Amino acid sequence: MIEVTLSPALVIGTGLVGASVAHALTDAGVEVHLTDARASHALVAASRGAGTIEPIDPEACRLVVVAVPPGSLASVIADALERYPHATVTDVGSVKGVVLAALRATGLDLARYCGSHPMAGSHKAGPLTARADLFVDRTWVITPHDTSAAQSVLTVERIAELCGARMVTMGAQHHDEAVGQVSHVPQLVSALVGGGLLDLPPEHLRLAGQGLRDVTRIAGSDPHLWQQIIAANAGAVRIELQEIHASLGELIEVLDDPDAVHAFLDRGRRGVRALPGKQGAATAWVQVVVEIPDAPGALAKLFTDIEETGVNVEDVTIDHDVDRRVGWLAVHVEPTAATRLSRALTDAGWSVRP
Amino acid sequence: MIEVTLSPALVIGTGLVGASVAHALTDAGVEVHLTDARASHALVAASRGAGTIEPIDPEACRLVVVAVPPGSLASVIADALERYPHATVTDVGSVKGVVLAALRATGLDLARYCGSHPMAGSHKAGPLTARADLFVDRTWVITPHDTSAAQSVLTVERIAELCGARMVTMGAQHHDEAVGQVSHVPQLVSALVGGGLLDLPPEHLRLAGQGLRDVTRIAGSDPHLWQQIIAANAGAVRIELQEIHASLGELIEVLDDPDAVHAFLDRGRRGVRALPGKQGAATAWVQVVVEIPDAPGALAKLFTDIEETGVNVEDVTIDHDVDRRVGWLAVHVEPTAATRLSRALTDAGWSVRP
Repeated sequence: MIEVTLSPALVIGTGLVGASVAHALTDAGVEVHLTDARASHALVAASRGAGTIEPIDPEACRLVVVAVPPGSLASVIADALERYPHATVTDVGSVKGVVLAALRATGLDLARYCGSHPMAGSHKAGPLTARADLFVDRTWVITPHDTSAAQSVLTVERIAELCGARMVTMGAQHHDEAVGQVSHVPQLVSALVGGGLLDLPPEHLRLAGQGLRDVTRIAGSDPHLWQQIIAANAGAVRIELQEIHASLGELIEVLDDPDAVHAFLDRGRRGVRALPGKQGAATAWVQVVVEIPDAPGALAKLFTDIEETGVNVEDVTIDHDVDRRVGWLAVHVEPTAATRLSRALTDAGWSVRP
Repeated sequence: MIEVTLSPALVIGTGLVGASVAHALTDAGVEVHLTDARASHALVAASRGAGTIEPIDPEACRLVVVAVPPGSLASVIADALERYPHATVTDVGSVKGVVLAALRATGLDLARYCGSHPMAGSHKAGPLTARADLFVDRTWVITPHDTSAAQSVLTVERIAELCGARMVTMGAQHHDEAVGQVSHVPQLVSALVGGGLLDLPPEHLRLAGQGLRDVTRIAGSDPHLWQQIIAANAGAVRIELQEIHASLGELIEVLDDPDAVHAFLDRGRRGVRALPGKQGAATAWVQVVVEIPDAPGALAKLFTDIEETGVNVEDVTIDHDVDRRVGWLAVHVEPTAATRLSRALTDAGWSVRP
């Protein structure tokens, strides 16, 4: 039986991610000590309830969470392995391969190290943004290496569990390729669009709507942090960027072909819908059919009731039976919402076709 | 004195934008008639209070708002000019140049036509999404042509005003170049990233965070609608895409150069900050300095009070005067927020350094 002990723990680096982990651990009853190269930030985190700035006893320390910028990860992890001889050491860095390679190069025994990467960064930063529930229902990648001890892996899994995150386990190289695709390349593309705005006359920027703001939101992130991330994963990122570059070249070639542009746009939409948690394809809508009584204001009342259910209505159609002086409203919704809508409308006194 | 009369008005097309304009006009006391190629949608809009589906008297009609898909705009506008001889006709389409060229080709007198483009679309669609306040504080571009009568322009300006929008006036070609840059190209780039996701293993998509979702959100829009928009503005869009393509090629070249990657990312951030309504550069933060009393829990209480002001805190630093056993917290915020924060903390009993 392997005993997993998290307490007392040390969190090194009290930015958004580090301080949020500290909050979650503290809430779970772990004794958490905090340290940060900027002492003010550790003090802020401590005074907001993330832990204490009292020094930890190195011999007693059972867990070290390293949450420092990517460029400093390997040296801080190596230092922690030496300084806290009985602690499992993990980190929350966005890139795992180069860190592991640097740690191997030190010749240290890495049994007590297991990497991890909670996918819950934000373009918001600053010491007051941390919160215990930052990781709830977010993906937390655990990246054991081939000499990670079982206890180290189980300890890191326990942290992710306490934080309410959804665990995914993969190797460092695999992780880096995947985040290159779903995180680093989108970051660079966002910066690409953002940078292009500097060439535009200010009056054109007044026409900017929500779409542009969404696309460029993450381009507002810290360039210093992201430069380190890209540097640590340049190999995987380059391959993905080359594919994007080629696809963009193809689009430019076919821009006058309506069918090709439609296919390109449709492919984009299917890609978005492939993201977990997104709605299925439009063809998968189902209809909830409700009878519309022949009474003044009945349809308006029905829409009010539908809106109050909070269900997202994709389309509606209305049929009339002229003989019976009655009509039916077909509400097109996602399959998952149909039962809820049907039940809510029945409860509200409407006649829903079974 | 030119008299601007909006009532009775006809709104052709009751999708999100058309029905929202109808709601706003109705709320302003205008008699609004609704029509839609899908009769159900007009009925839905009417029963939600946007207007009536009773036919309008063609001779009485004073305003026609055409809110149909881009590919049908020119023919519906031309038809409206002929059918409603005393009405100002406008449209809410996203592209203006090709529509105007097609209208000119009809040989019709276009004095009663003035184009417009309220910048308030959404990736959300469906008949229940319309609302009267959709355009409040959004940009509404008015695109008079050189034969638009003054009354037509003033009428369209009146609509934008009633909708609470911010007006910008520019020519059709100028408008199309600008929206190519700030709307159409971001749309295609979002679809580019979205489409790339289809090549990835589903387990990689589980690592997707908020950033990817932001970047690809608008790629979830209707491909059929957007294909028409791109087709109508392919010339301007191609030029912008070629610039993006070239910049991306340059980035790939310098991906191993940390300084060049930092410069690229920093340029992206500066571009985002150039968008109206976004915060200024980081260097422009100002400090609000508050005395921290030497009492247990004082700092925690201070943070609670700061958070309650809702001001976005960019950074904090803490200084201690060991002799006086007192400390100061310097809160770094945007210049526009400093006065508000300072006043709120003073009101809450804290000693704020003047």
